[in-house]
Amino acid sequence: MSRVRVHNFSLSIDGYGAGPGQGLAEPLGAGGEELHGWIFPTAYWHERSGEPGGSTGRDDAWLRAGDEGIGATVMGRNMFGPVRGPWEAWDAAGDAGPWRGWWGERPPFGHEVFVLTHHARDPEVMEGGTTFHFVTDGIRAALEAARGAANGADIRIGGGVHTVREAVATGLVDELHVAIAPVLLGGGERLFTGNWAEDGYRLAASEQGEGAMHVRLARS
Amino acid sequence: MSRVRVHNFSLSIDGYGAGPGQGLAEPLGAGGEELHGWIFPTAYWHERSGEPGGSTGRDDAWLRAGDEGIGATVMGRNMFGPVRGPWEAWDAAGDAGPWRGWWGERPPFGHEVFVLTHHARDPEVMEGGTTFHFVTDGIRAALEAARGAANGADIRIGGGVHTVREAVATGLVDELHVAIAPVLLGGGERLFTGNWAEDGYRLAASEQGEGAMHVRLARS
Repeated sequence: MSRVRVHNFSLSIDGYGAGPGQGLAEPLGAGGEELHGWIFPTAYWHERSGEPGGSTGRDDAWLRAGDEGIGATVMGRNMFGPVRGPWEAWDAAGDAGPWRGWWGERPPFGHEVFVLTHHARDPEVMEGGTTFHFVTDGIRAALEAARGAANGADIRIGGGVHTVREAVATGLVDELHVAIAPVLLGGGERLFTGNWAEDGYRLAASEQGEGAMHVRLARS
Repeated sequence: MSRVRVHNFSLSIDGYGAGPGQGLAEPLGAGGEELHGWIFPTAYWHERSGEPGGSTGRDDAWLRAGDEGIGATVMGRNMFGPVRGPWEAWDAAGDAGPWRGWWGERPPFGHEVFVLTHHARDPEVMEGGTTFHFVTDGIRAALEAARGAANGADIRIGGGVHTVREAVATGLVDELHVAIAPVLLGGGERLFTGNWAEDGYRLAASEQGEGAMHVRLARS
């Protein structure tokens, strides 16, 4: 049975998963890049960026685990891109063609990716095995489609904050890896609203990394 | 000039400084003891408890720093004890005399302690140099009294969550050491309400301890 997992979700010490003012210039909001500061020194990040070297400590191990055994990804539209409103309006405003994600022509997924949106759109077949599907009927439908595409492997909720919270609210998220980064954001989107303990989550593992504190939450 | 400092403020990963349901049986609320799990293994805690041994790593160093250079302490009544409402009603209900704090006849402060309360009461002179004063006219008055008593040394805000937030809101807190513990509380009192970055705080230091992630916030 496919499990639904969240990985490498960076959280500020004041509880925000993205800074305020997300947009094309700052996809993660103000200060959001700092949240991911623990990722950039790792060997896995270097590998993914085609660079040698990098650290091979605990941060690296947690980062890597996020790609293991994943057969499909679900993400919110804010994570897919800065486009708000109908896709056509964005396309009409520029001359670069339709928005096809932050990741260039060869996204690092290599599997089916289901993007939640209120605006229908045909799938985008990318290089390297990634296809972006656009799902207009909600998180449960996206998870169901992802389950079909994952072929027995696990499903990852990619983000952002709103989508993770929404998926948790469905009761269908089995585990989450949260990396608490030494950053004060001041505002943004909160991850922990509601009572996660009452919702059945418990702390399944924790470890001090080099640049973040890692915790894994699991439904009991 | 005395600085106003907060130290060893343990925070859960979901942002709570104390669990729900604080009371005599659970002074820190449900799960609150776990929040302080990083403290108990340290050498400093062992020393304070009259026991040999203990760890001498980063957690120990951060814990110790909380007592250095402190000349007076301000705390909320929930930190002083489980008593709610008038002191007399509590005293009438039991036969153990007035509530004189959680710490026995020789509290570990060794200086003047100012307890915020809505109910006036005479000072309690304890052994070892601690006197509890009861302040009914608010956090600013308590800080001013503490400044007088500290004799040039620093003032510590002892807690709990509400008192720390209130002190921060006055703009008079110079620095805070927050220890983020790998604990999911689910509910309780949140530390980070409002926008601390806009209020002038920045991350001044951070370090991964053995059992918690330590951060120091300072007003810039």
